[in-house]
Amino acid sequence: MVDDTDFGREGASSLMEKVFRDPVHNLLGFDRERDRLVLDLIETSEIQRLRYIKLMGVSYIVYPGADHNRFSHSLGAAFLMKRIIERMQGLSRDRRFRLLVEEIQEYREILLAAALLHDIGHFPLSHLLESFTKEHHERWTSRLVAHPKGEVHQILKAQNRRYPRVIQEIIERTFKPSFAVKLISSQLDVDRMDYLLRDSYHTGVGYGKFDLEWLIHSLRILEHEGDWEIAIDREKGLHAVESYVLARYYMYQQVYHHKTSRAAGVMVTQILKRAAELVKDGEVISPSESLCKLLIQPIRLTPEEFLQLDDVVLTYAIKEWSVCSDEILSDLCRRFLERRVFKTVEIEPERYERVKGRLQRIAKHKSFDPRYYLVLDTAVADPYELFWRTDREVSESIYLVDPDLKLQELSEHSELIRAITNRRVARDRLCFPGELRQAIVPLI
Amino acid sequence: MVDDTDFGREGASSLMEKVFRDPVHNLLGFDRERDRLVLDLIETSEIQRLRYIKLMGVSYIVYPGADHNRFSHSLGAAFLMKRIIERMQGLSRDRRFRLLVEEIQEYREILLAAALLHDIGHFPLSHLLESFTKEHHERWTSRLVAHPKGEVHQILKAQNRRYPRVIQEIIERTFKPSFAVKLISSQLDVDRMDYLLRDSYHTGVGYGKFDLEWLIHSLRILEHEGDWEIAIDREKGLHAVESYVLARYYMYQQVYHHKTSRAAGVMVTQILKRAAELVKDGEVISPSESLCKLLIQPIRLTPEEFLQLDDVVLTYAIKEWSVCSDEILSDLCRRFLERRVFKTVEIEPERYERVKGRLQRIAKHKSFDPRYYLVLDTAVADPYELFWRTDREVSESIYLVDPDLKLQELSEHSELIRAITNRRVARDRLCFPGELRQAIVPLI
Amino acid sequence: MVDDTDFGREGASSLMEKVFRDPVHNLLGFDRERDRLVLDLIETSEIQRLRYIKLMGVSYIVYPGADHNRFSHSLGAAFLMKRIIERMQGLSRDRRFRLLVEEIQEYREILLAAALLHDIGHFPLSHLLESFTKEHHERWTSRLVAHPKGEVHQILKAQNRRYPRVIQEIIERTFKPSFAVKLISSQLDVDRMDYLLRDSYHTGVGYGKFDLEWLIHSLRILEHEGDWEIAIDREKGLHAVESYVLARYYMYQQVYHHKTSRAAGVMVTQILKRAAELVKDGEVISPSESLCKLLIQPIRLTPEEFLQLDDVVLTYAIKEWSVCSDEILSDLCRRFLERRVFKTVEIEPERYERVKGRLQRIAKHKSFDPRYYLVLDTAVADPYELFWRTDREVSESIYLVDPDLKLQELSEHSELIRAITNRRVARDRLCFPGELRQAIVPLI
Amino acid sequence: MVDDTDFGREGASSLMEKVFRDPVHNLLGFDRERDRLVLDLIETSEIQRLRYIKLMGVSYIVYPGADHNRFSHSLGAAFLMKRIIERMQGLSRDRRFRLLVEEIQEYREILLAAALLHDIGHFPLSHLLESFTKEHHERWTSRLVAHPKGEVHQILKAQNRRYPRVIQEIIERTFKPSFAVKLISSQLDVDRMDYLLRDSYHTGVGYGKFDLEWLIHSLRILEHEGDWEIAIDREKGLHAVESYVLARYYMYQQVYHHKTSRAAGVMVTQILKRAAELVKDGEVISPSESLCKLLIQPIRLTPEEFLQLDDVVLTYAIKEWSVCSDEILSDLCRRFLERRVFKTVEIEPERYERVKGRLQRIAKHKSFDPRYYLVLDTAVADPYELFWRTDREVSESIYLVDPDLKLQELSEHSELIRAITNRRVARDRLCFPGELRQAIVPLI
Repeated sequence: MVDDTDFGREGASSLMEKVFRDPVHNLLGFDRERDRLVLDLIETSEIQRLRYIKLMGVSYIVYPGADHNRFSHSLGAAFLMKRIIERMQGLSRDRRFRLLVEEIQEYREILLAAALLHDIGHFPLSHLLESFTKEHHERWTSRLVAHPKGEVHQILKAQNRRYPRVIQEIIERTFKPSFAVKLISSQLDVDRMDYLLRDSYHTGVGYGKFDLEWLIHSLRILEHEGDWEIAIDREKGLHAVESYVLARYYMYQQVYHHKTSRAAGVMVTQILKRAAELVKDGEVISPSESLCKLLIQPIRLTPEEFLQLDDVVLTYAIKEWSVCSDEILSDLCRRFLERRVFKTVEIEPERYERVKGRLQRIAKHKSFDPRYYLVLDTAVADPYELFWRTDREVSESIYLVDPDLKLQELSEHSELIRAITNRRVARDRLCFPGELRQAIVPLI
Repeated sequence: MVDDTDFGREGASSLMEKVFRDPVHNLLGFDRERDRLVLDLIETSEIQRLRYIKLMGVSYIVYPGADHNRFSHSLGAAFLMKRIIERMQGLSRDRRFRLLVEEIQEYREILLAAALLHDIGHFPLSHLLESFTKEHHERWTSRLVAHPKGEVHQILKAQNRRYPRVIQEIIERTFKPSFAVKLISSQLDVDRMDYLLRDSYHTGVGYGKFDLEWLIHSLRILEHEGDWEIAIDREKGLHAVESYVLARYYMYQQVYHHKTSRAAGVMVTQILKRAAELVKDGEVISPSESLCKLLIQPIRLTPEEFLQLDDVVLTYAIKEWSVCSDEILSDLCRRFLERRVFKTVEIEPERYERVKGRLQRIAKHKSFDPRYYLVLDTAVADPYELFWRTDREVSESIYLVDPDLKLQELSEHSELIRAITNRRVARDRLCFPGELRQAIVPLI
Repeated sequence: MVDDTDFGREGASSLMEKVFRDPVHNLLGFDRERDRLVLDLIETSEIQRLRYIKLMGVSYIVYPGADHNRFSHSLGAAFLMKRIIERMQGLSRDRRFRLLVEEIQEYREILLAAALLHDIGHFPLSHLLESFTKEHHERWTSRLVAHPKGEVHQILKAQNRRYPRVIQEIIERTFKPSFAVKLISSQLDVDRMDYLLRDSYHTGVGYGKFDLEWLIHSLRILEHEGDWEIAIDREKGLHAVESYVLARYYMYQQVYHHKTSRAAGVMVTQILKRAAELVKDGEVISPSESLCKLLIQPIRLTPEEFLQLDDVVLTYAIKEWSVCSDEILSDLCRRFLERRVFKTVEIEPERYERVKGRLQRIAKHKSFDPRYYLVLDTAVADPYELFWRTDREVSESIYLVDPDLKLQELSEHSELIRAITNRRVARDRLCFPGELRQAIVPLI
Repeated sequence: MVDDTDFGREGASSLMEKVFRDPVHNLLGFDRERDRLVLDLIETSEIQRLRYIKLMGVSYIVYPGADHNRFSHSLGAAFLMKRIIERMQGLSRDRRFRLLVEEIQEYREILLAAALLHDIGHFPLSHLLESFTKEHHERWTSRLVAHPKGEVHQILKAQNRRYPRVIQEIIERTFKPSFAVKLISSQLDVDRMDYLLRDSYHTGVGYGKFDLEWLIHSLRILEHEGDWEIAIDREKGLHAVESYVLARYYMYQQVYHHKTSRAAGVMVTQILKRAAELVKDGEVISPSESLCKLLIQPIRLTPEEFLQLDDVVLTYAIKEWSVCSDEILSDLCRRFLERRVFKTVEIEPERYERVKGRLQRIAKHKSFDPRYYLVLDTAVADPYELFWRTDREVSESIYLVDPDLKLQELSEHSELIRAITNRRVARDRLCFPGELRQAIVPLI
């Protein structure tokens, strides 16, 4: 809830805080003066658009409560950033942290803005479209921030000529000091902290919960090799950060990679693939121009067109296509809308290669075009990783700091985290219509 | 989450319960045998459509977490019905309740179905469209249940030839014994119990909470004037039922009638009004045929067309219209999408009548057509009412039962409830664009 | 949990906040510098003693989770005071509040101390002993604060010579400006805010919950007739403050006045009465001297003796007495320890007067001495009151402030609160051993 | 809360369920007929005594909310057992589980009783006294169940002549079929499930939470080598059981082995040691005879004496001793009561052996008798173990069951659990008065 009731008749500036009601963080407030920039950015069409993009893509198919959107997530991320900065302030009277913390206050404005903006480059249905278009959302975020006609760009620039560039550098992970990048995008950032709690809340599962208060309480910032680094006080916060990492691990295993949710995602990808072919051939029309371009030339989308795209446009297209003349496209769309989701069976990729031919013949025999109705889906998660970015980028590792102010990477110290470090979890599942189950399963 | 993992390889029938993950009720399960009817109904397109209709309409404009849909609410209502019936079963060994409770088991099937189906007649954006079309959703629910080609109708009929008619009678409040109607639609029904908890959960406000467990624990069913009546054990449950009634009172005062949320609703109504006129005149086209009919001849919508309508269709239209050539329509739509919501000021209707002329001149002078940009909105809530339905319908009153098994209407016994009984709360607010604020407010 | 882990090896002063784990407020922290006084007071024996006095007296007999103590409640009250003061600070940039808020900072120290100390004068088993000794705990609190040898007194005085007197004035409700008294002891104070939430949490009932965040958010402080007054922003916080008042109303009705809990209290009072008589006559010995004095000359207890008294001493005495030679005393004690609580039946006092003689004869006939085994218990609660203190004391009323900064007493504006204003709820119950039930109940 | 309000005037038997209010499980109810045995056992003095023994011993020193008692824990364990049995019933229509589940119903009575009674043999302050007396509480539980004059024994025997013996076998882990022992005492039992949630709730830490509903949902019972075994459905419940095991791991690391809590425990042990010596020498008197025997001949305690012992007796003794003439005893007691807890520093036992002599000299020099003021404390936890009981006892391992009904031990399948399997975590800490810190720490 936006609480902009005026106190007295003197206009919105009289009360110093603007608050939103948020089910995860309760009252989520920003200071009308000190946080003016982030409050102005919230009003832009780039941010308002996120109201129409679900945070969990098609997971609502499996978790009926998971309709929540990226707008509330972005507010939440900015709010967590504010809380972390205020925690740093609280540390500032400790002389070992003093200097830096004064500096942090200069970063408050830019860090809140970066946290709020980190997701504006998301396609509809979030990550599904990334693999379809082969573009990361970070690239679009950066592009939108740099777009001279964009509202976000103009507000940033009006505040400080350098800000658009600074935000881009943070998003692209090249900014220094590192702690700014870390807090926005690493294995311990406000993005993850917020989405784990939020997804857990709206799905109703317990997995994503961790001790946010204690984690923030244990956060330290300190000088390290001429840079500023974020770390967790090992004596206080080891277990809080472990459960935070495990929370994400479980959310991937149990929720994000839920078989039915993945199968629904596969269906949407097949729909888009089929639609793209038909649109190219002029056999089906897309309800909107931006969507049309997304399907056939995503690389050429303008920022204005990009901003037109959201879950409403895509879902509307699926509804329209469900009554179109192409049998495959309309069938896939109807299955999606009526929740007749593809069934799945786990299979090793090598095994799949060996039986593929036979399975395709079976599908064809039952009148299912195997190009659309027989899909191998691979869900990949990295529970905790070391070294996966290029050299010039800021590391994503989580550091502990011991009582002597020495830094140590988390998995060096924690047996539990070591057990899942650099162990990519990949689940390969064959997805197909329920009608094929009896014929296919015995062959797997 | 739909948990349909098979245990063993013997198919979905092997484990006896089908469970959904629900953030409000946690595991929400139905028995695969005993509750087969409700499980089949969940798969129908009538019910699946509710995934695309938000439970709180445009309240997400104010409460960023309030994106949740009618599908999860309908599951929740059916689940509460199941819990209530099982509670009745628990009472069955008490000899004074014995006979009835055996009968209740016969009603289990039909009551669960009625609870699940009670909302299928909802227009997109829920209650907003009811006032636009001047049709109650109950009418459409009844019509859909009776529609011979409908999936719901066919499943009900296959189970028992009389079922479609029975559900209609329950929805239309003419069914006997009364307890069935009461549990579906009264001031103490599974609909309200679920939506209060659910809306409270997703908005993050505390108001809608009440002690569900104790309320169910205090629920009694007993013979009364040749009928079966629902009542709350006065000695145990008085305060639980009071706080339940107050929970709803607060949700209306604070959440459902929030000024910004009402103003957003006013904007949507103005958009539809303008669009209807333009569509009639052929000046603007509606993106879909069903929507077109909804705008100009809602009374003639067929069931098939009705089922096409959901929040996606309507929101998509608003997006399309935001770039149409009509200045008023496109402006209203852009304001809505970018969350530049009308401002409001409270005003008494009589006062408004007196200043109306002047206000309209001011609006015109500032180039705002007062027909669309100056709207008096009246939000009405009845916190607790007696006698408001026709004679042949089942009463909506809440009864208490005392230790001597005598019934007593709630407000007779409770001072707190008496204070809000039959006190319709109406809030009249003038809604207008922010640009008019300085000119208008001094005149109010 | 007291988090006094040192960061680095530089001693406890290096990290600036001392935090406790609290189930109600989560991390409950005080600043090691700014809040040094309250942190020092926490270490005193007066405060540590509160660990051994249960917040809810004998209610654990009814609510097995209600073992929580006054120590955590006192921390909670001080913490709420800190939050309120910091909220006031947040308002300080609004020019209408500026002056005062600067002053509030001067009060921070003294207000936190007062909140922490408000309960140190409690007897064991809290309110039960107040009626036995006919002394209010506030009197003892004031006396302990003034006691020159007391640790609390010495710490207060070392900080500021005037502090012991200031705290006394606040506790005795004569301090000006009024807001200080109000926040410590009125119908809207940190004491109630904390105990409602805490008792609700540990008993597991839902009644005591209210929207703490929003209530604090709506709190204002403003000049009023040359004094500083606390008020709730009517536009924002009306419903939050209503539900806060109702929360207390329900806690009294449902929890604090639960019949079994009251009956257990009656038993303890009878035990003390009997023990006092026997101790006076030298027939039974009290396990401890302080307890002995409490029983026979409470008025002459020294501060040192008073501080010896806690729930442990009293419960231990009950255990000892349960095997003493006096039949009545030992029987009452055994009943209490084995939870064979007196039964209760509601009765009007006039009716009781009429049947008393007959009931006493019945009791005697069954060998129960009616002086101990037949007790009329009257539980009184004032849900919301106006004017109940003497003139020189600060009023306890709750005020609303409207957009024009005018004050209004709550019940003038709220129908709901008006319904329970000045309506003392008294429940009269006759308490007696279960063995008398069949003989007694038909006569009531 | 015990809800024994009668409905109607026909006595407590009229409503079929007796419910308690529990903050962890909300309404915790037992059937007045089917669960009559457990309801009768709740009334015994053996169970009522548990109200006066804290579940977390002296942890309240660190966590101010952790005052909760073993009585509510025992109710909770019995209630979880009821829920698990009813879940088994729910599975009973699956033909593979049918036979067994019918049998389980025969066990309902005995399993609920065993769950309720599992803790009656606890000394005051729980585990602290176990190491002092060198007796496990299970031995006393068994002894009390077998005690012919005990209320528990008599009630069990009246129900079924064999029951006392059966309960003993379950407690002693020799009963067959194994699932009964497993559910009462293994690495996946109702005891742990309840205490993790309960301790987490009352301390306010997040660590002990796990997905109880899903864990129960995933529980299976099946035939295995002529026995009945408990297992978790691997496909459904792997992650739920992993987080359950990790929850316990974290509770030990963070809460149960908190340094200040351990140090407080060390102080109590030193107090008892000193008091025992003095009592033996006749220099100090114990306030009660049972306590006296506990101190000097615990092995000779009679059941009646044992039942006299609780936290009240022990805490009272500490209060008495705090003013006794022995300087060491009174000093230790005062430190404990005023929360001047020993400081701790981690040290390896070998290192301690090397510096011990020097440390003792320092302590003596500062007038602290090192026998009481210099204590090496070793806190040991086994996060997850295989094979640690004798052959004739039921294994404590957790099993998974795969879709082909094959059993598999948890750590074979889970990498995460493997990382902590058989890795005893021992923390060695030297405990000493704060006055010695500066002298001691540099030598460690």
